[in-house]
Amino acid sequence: MTDTIGASHSQPLKDIAREEGRLNEFVWVGPHIEADVTRQPFSGAALAEIMEFADSQELTQSIQMLFAGEVINGSENRPALHWALRGNNDHLAKASEFAEQAKACREFADKVSSGALGFEVKTILHIGIGGSDLGPRLIWDALRPLGHKGPNIRFCANVDPADFAEATEGLDAKSTLVIVVSKSFKTPETQANAQLARQWLISELGEDNLNDHMAAVSSAPDLAQAWGAPADRIFPMDSAVGGRYSVWSSVGLSLMIALGSEIWSEFLGGAAEMDAHFRDAPLKDNLPAKLAMMDYHVHSQRGIASRVVLAYAHRLRKLPDFLQQLEMESNGKSAASGRGVKTDITAPITWGSVGTLGQHSFHQLLHQGIDRSAAEFVVSLNAGVKEGDKKNGQSLLANAYAQAEAFLVGRSEAEAEAQLREKGVDEETIKMRAPHMHMDGGRASSMFLLEDITPRSVGALIAMYEHRTFAYGMLLGINPFDQWGVELGKVMAEEIDNAISGETSKERDPTTMRLIQKTQDARR
Amino acid sequence: MTDTIGASHSQPLKDIAREEGRLNEFVWVGPHIEADVTRQPFSGAALAEIMEFADSQELTQSIQMLFAGEVINGSENRPALHWALRGNNDHLAKASEFAEQAKACREFADKVSSGALGFEVKTILHIGIGGSDLGPRLIWDALRPLGHKGPNIRFCANVDPADFAEATEGLDAKSTLVIVVSKSFKTPETQANAQLARQWLISELGEDNLNDHMAAVSSAPDLAQAWGAPADRIFPMDSAVGGRYSVWSSVGLSLMIALGSEIWSEFLGGAAEMDAHFRDAPLKDNLPAKLAMMDYHVHSQRGIASRVVLAYAHRLRKLPDFLQQLEMESNGKSAASGRGVKTDITAPITWGSVGTLGQHSFHQLLHQGIDRSAAEFVVSLNAGVKEGDKKNGQSLLANAYAQAEAFLVGRSEAEAEAQLREKGVDEETIKMRAPHMHMDGGRASSMFLLEDITPRSVGALIAMYEHRTFAYGMLLGINPFDQWGVELGKVMAEEIDNAISGETSKERDPTTMRLIQKTQDARR
Repeated sequence: MTDTIGASHSQPLKDIAREEGRLNEFVWVGPHIEADVTRQPFSGAALAEIMEFADSQELTQSIQMLFAGEVINGSENRPALHWALRGNNDHLAKASEFAEQAKACREFADKVSSGALGFEVKTILHIGIGGSDLGPRLIWDALRPLGHKGPNIRFCANVDPADFAEATEGLDAKSTLVIVVSKSFKTPETQANAQLARQWLISELGEDNLNDHMAAVSSAPDLAQAWGAPADRIFPMDSAVGGRYSVWSSVGLSLMIALGSEIWSEFLGGAAEMDAHFRDAPLKDNLPAKLAMMDYHVHSQRGIASRVVLAYAHRLRKLPDFLQQLEMESNGKSAASGRGVKTDITAPITWGSVGTLGQHSFHQLLHQGIDRSAAEFVVSLNAGVKEGDKKNGQSLLANAYAQAEAFLVGRSEAEAEAQLREKGVDEETIKMRAPHMHMDGGRASSMFLLEDITPRSVGALIAMYEHRTFAYGMLLGINPFDQWGVELGKVMAEEIDNAISGETSKERDPTTMRLIQKTQDARR
Repeated sequence: MTDTIGASHSQPLKDIAREEGRLNEFVWVGPHIEADVTRQPFSGAALAEIMEFADSQELTQSIQMLFAGEVINGSENRPALHWALRGNNDHLAKASEFAEQAKACREFADKVSSGALGFEVKTILHIGIGGSDLGPRLIWDALRPLGHKGPNIRFCANVDPADFAEATEGLDAKSTLVIVVSKSFKTPETQANAQLARQWLISELGEDNLNDHMAAVSSAPDLAQAWGAPADRIFPMDSAVGGRYSVWSSVGLSLMIALGSEIWSEFLGGAAEMDAHFRDAPLKDNLPAKLAMMDYHVHSQRGIASRVVLAYAHRLRKLPDFLQQLEMESNGKSAASGRGVKTDITAPITWGSVGTLGQHSFHQLLHQGIDRSAAEFVVSLNAGVKEGDKKNGQSLLANAYAQAEAFLVGRSEAEAEAQLREKGVDEETIKMRAPHMHMDGGRASSMFLLEDITPRSVGALIAMYEHRTFAYGMLLGINPFDQWGVELGKVMAEEIDNAISGETSKERDPTTMRLIQKTQDARR
């Protein structure tokens, strides 16, 4: 298949991007989001071909399975129900259970706000890692400038005790609510920090007042209770909601409290709009599905191994971190779930930064270095309006557009020479400098436009990415809901930890043996 | 050359890493740092060959040029003198000027600490971007837990006004010192934020008290003065110190104030130790130079396009961001400075995160997804000791070692089956699940060990990376001190900004024209 799609491989992207009708065919619209992918190396012919491939991979049927609540996560034998947390779930047996869970969170949030805990909560210390951490961090930064009246949130994730020390620096336990989020309540990092938090509360407040300051989110309420969370403060997570898809669940409890229920409902509502679009739109008009087809072509077929996410919005600065997990943990696999993977590249290496900061850091390579990245810009057209600073907001947008244009058009040595000459630079310097100013151009990018950064648009944006990742997994024949690749490291970490402690002397790889010895010596 | 080095290409990394003598040959030592690169796909034969290549590229002579203060930055016709800010500079004409600059900073820092500004400085608002931002952020996080007595630092970098709004949220202007860092004092983002800061100070304090709260770091004192910094509060930067190499200069003024002069001197001292090592050690014992040779082989010759930096230390969590700029802005180029680039890959895509957080995010791909990354672990053997928590610190180290071992050894399907069977899993599940648990192994990594995170070790670490990047540039025939690739985007941003404002109607790329129109409509 790669061969036939190769038809447009030889055509320079600069030319493809300017073809007649390109803007009509490659600006795609979904709820609250417009995706301009005119500058991706992806032709109408390629799209048509992958649309057929998507049929052969039964993408539409997979989407139906997802929303029917059928078992789509085969290796763990369960459905994936994150979408059902945001609405569209009347047909599910679990609908009332999910409604109960949401209600319990909302009531607890109201209690916190009204002072019914018996103390004013000024800070929530949110303890979790991975999917219990990245989503809440992203949404907190994105939405808290919308005038939240609730407490502040501090996050603590790493087993490195320096993280906990920093998270509690200057913190008053008397006005702090600790929320521990761990699906299994066995995650070692979260366990470690939960214990530190417990000790901290005891040392600051004494045993008697401990319970008032603790809550937990988990699928294992017994373990949460053993840690010390009161039974009525343990909020369940459904086992069919995977960590990286879970911000909509009780995992978002800290956000519900701190942002308030109105913002939270809007956030879920925006995601639900995207859900309905993804479920109902035919593939040819389906934004997440078409993005997945593009990904399949750009990454798996063309071999572009990296996706650089450039969020041109300070409030979305954690988006690259969030997408790193969503994409790489979901599709960064080679094992096939039935149909077999035909490609070397599954998930691309997903990384990035907030614009304009990246321009003053790594963009040099994106312009003149190795050409193996597809850039993904995210902008909000209302940048700066909320802050009463349209001028700088406009400059932010202009920078995003300029980077994307420069990636595409580049600059020839002759153009560089002419530009230097126009500036009155002497000929000797021109001759020396112009080669350094040459830029190939022809570098791929997408531009995602939001009208504004609102709870609704952010909800739609995250749901769009979730569904795109899912659909890409279906095209690859990968199960995007498991993560078996991370199990081995966990087992080995425990073994090596015990070996450093001298509790086992199992033979290991020689480099590891040396590291263990060195660590024992240094810490003696 | 690539062909002959190919001798070891076919040998699996698992086997190379366990060769007799590997630990002797591929554990490299420099001041305060040990680099275990036994698990990089790099043989003794390849090292010997690149050592010869380094001679032909005159690497030793380039190192001598650097430390002699000769013109090593050809396209900008100047030396690179960042190292001279940390000592070893007696032979330089500029030595006394540098000493004066450092003295002026120190005296100002003392003034701030002693209350001689006429108010207590509780917060420094540090405004800068790129090289004026990333270094100070990294060092602030790394060293402030060492008991700084000075003010807190807040950073503001982005032209997005949401950044400034957040940086000044809840901030009391009466106890704030604004330090604007901009080499040219023309960087648009920094200009924008400097103006916002000025307006903020005026609205909070009035015009009369303005000057007391402002200071600037720049090579353009007249522009800094025009902004409003008093003449005696403008601290020069030397034009021969590039932004991404400049944390040691007046750019670090905020750090000098907040961390105190003792920590600051140690930080410079650690870097100076690495400088002396890099300058004096023969190539065969020269840590930064040998790392650069490894980079040349791994990235440029073997085509591994990505370097993932895994800092297993919460305090070093900004290291990936810092190295992203250092490496990608320095060597992310194709233009050659005289000798010609022979390779497709110059700087690798450099990204990463703090461990263990990455394990719960993108490591899935590193274990089972595309195999084009060389992982780079950084650990501190004393993890947790300072925080009085050796147990969790040890767990942090065990996790780093386990990840590296799992990358190397992987897991066969048969091993997975046996492991599941041992757990009592039924045969049907085993058959279904084991393929998902297969991991190729053979994935490259390095392990950098520090004894502890001290001002001295961090100084040495950053200097090591600077010199490694420089040496890699010399091997590639690239000038690591310029960044011509980012100029075009700046020019275009200004043009597009004017076009959105309706001030020009120059024809552009059609996608950009549409974005301009759409932005005008949305912001009307």
